[in-house]
Amino acid sequence: MSSWVAPRRVVVIGTGLIGTSIALALRERGGQVLLADRDPAAVALAVEMGAGAVLPDGRRGSLPPTGGPAELAVLAVPPAAVAATLLDAQKRGLARFYTDVASVKVRPLAEAAELGCEMSVFVGGHPLAGRERSGPAAGRADLFTGRPWVLCPAESDPAAIEAVTALVRTCGAIPRTVEAAEHDRAVAVVSHAPHVVSAAMAARLAETADTVLALAGQGVRDVTRIAAGDAHLWTGILSANAGPVADALEDVAGDLARVAAALRGASAGCARVAPAIGGADGAAGVVTDLLLRGNRGRGRIPASKAGGRDAAR
Amino acid sequence: MSSWVAPRRVVVIGTGLIGTSIALALRERGGQVLLADRDPAAVALAVEMGAGAVLPDGRRGSLPPTGGPAELAVLAVPPAAVAATLLDAQKRGLARFYTDVASVKVRPLAEAAELGCEMSVFVGGHPLAGRERSGPAAGRADLFTGRPWVLCPAESDPAAIEAVTALVRTCGAIPRTVEAAEHDRAVAVVSHAPHVVSAAMAARLAETADTVLALAGQGVRDVTRIAAGDAHLWTGILSANAGPVADALEDVAGDLARVAAALRGASAGCARVAPAIGGADGAAGVVTDLLLRGNRGRGRIPASKAGGRDAAR
Repeated sequence: MSSWVAPRRVVVIGTGLIGTSIALALRERGGQVLLADRDPAAVALAVEMGAGAVLPDGRRGSLPPTGGPAELAVLAVPPAAVAATLLDAQKRGLARFYTDVASVKVRPLAEAAELGCEMSVFVGGHPLAGRERSGPAAGRADLFTGRPWVLCPAESDPAAIEAVTALVRTCGAIPRTVEAAEHDRAVAVVSHAPHVVSAAMAARLAETADTVLALAGQGVRDVTRIAAGDAHLWTGILSANAGPVADALEDVAGDLARVAAALRGASAGCARVAPAIGGADGAAGVVTDLLLRGNRGRGRIPASKAGGRDAAR
Repeated sequence: MSSWVAPRRVVVIGTGLIGTSIALALRERGGQVLLADRDPAAVALAVEMGAGAVLPDGRRGSLPPTGGPAELAVLAVPPAAVAATLLDAQKRGLARFYTDVASVKVRPLAEAAELGCEMSVFVGGHPLAGRERSGPAAGRADLFTGRPWVLCPAESDPAAIEAVTALVRTCGAIPRTVEAAEHDRAVAVVSHAPHVVSAAMAARLAETADTVLALAGQGVRDVTRIAAGDAHLWTGILSANAGPVADALEDVAGDLARVAAALRGASAGCARVAPAIGGADGAAGVVTDLLLRGNRGRGRIPASKAGGRDAAR
């Protein structure tokens, strides 16, 4: 893949943060971009930002553009909408090749195959980039620079893989081929479960007194930052990757319950003046063991190449 | 408390991050500081940084300094060591008034009273400031600038409260009087439980494949940042505040288990092509409800006055 050509004509369906950012990156390299979104305001804003032109009858995304099919159509829609959007786009002959950007891969791929989509011209994709803000106004051409972009070419033709890889490189991202189930298990651990864990911690602050919140420092701010994300968008993501996310959450919940029980036992069993949980006994062992595993896990995260801005979902 | 005089002579026992930072702040305002630590290397490093002079026989912290008692002794030791250190300091007559900096208040206060310490000259304290690094070398005179500093003057004489308040103001912090049990419940929610939650999430990464970690973005980095903290120091803190921390962790674990069960049920019960958990049904309701409570809780954290550097533990 050392030689590649930036796609010249691309349809982007869904002008949220990711779709608009892809469109802006393509436009910066001189590509022609046709935009569609079920929300006319969103597509109008993306056009205003210079992300491209409106796909003819693009509000419904349902009619082929003039000038024949595009090289590539990017389906930048939520996971649950990928299959139906792909089927519709293929029926209309919008492009030669297709890709999506959903942060879940197994279920959309299975749904698309089941709906009868032509899978040889489709390559599932997931750019590991995002921002705390969403919508077209948050879009930026350099959102994907230096970030990984997963491709899951289960039944894809080599020409489809080549076209989608060229899109990824045009956006400045690094393509990584990963099997769909492996991808979903990985993002459950590094993205989806952390989102729920952050929300569960932040939920403790929803009803607490202002005097308690006045004592908040940078630690709890960091732990709960991503809890600000769009609740309905994230319900869709979590539901689409339900099994692997549940696995990870059960592990976290189990560890927390064990530490709580150990603290509870120590709290009840200790005389007041006795040293708070002795050095090597069971209760302190449970707490220290988790904290040491936390140290190890934290230490294994590779140093971030991008700044805080390029946050993977 | 509009008029106050910076303390002129202070003993600091424990030259870790907090003790050294207090000493540096006092030195900057022209105070005399005498330092002690059970680790001779730590006290030597603090002296080298200009934090003060060695307390005579200060390695053991057990002999009164020449020139009579100091105005104030600051016990910057872990929660479990506060009571014994206070008793020893009072027996030696190190100072007129005493305070500590432990992030837990009920148990150290109870232990000190039970050991027979003179509680009228002691004011429990907790500066809500910290850094990711620990030890004297991480100390800085401006660590407390603009941060809250909790005082728990249960049985304290007004003169003791005045002396400790002057210390807090000299360090540039904002004194807040809080009842000890209320303080402990508050820090359990905004500091101690977030630490365990961060560790429990980070623990998932301890054994995972490098290919999984390669997909980590800014979200999981933020959620797990404080999991890098000293495991043994934190075991002591959590154990000293066991009951309130266990309460908060059980709430988080319960929410995570409920979301996991909802996702599990939806995963098993849905036909593949059916939309991933319908809009208003029970499973999606459980997930969205937690995420919305997370939104609310996150939104209630006051905007940080200090930068990322001044991280409360």
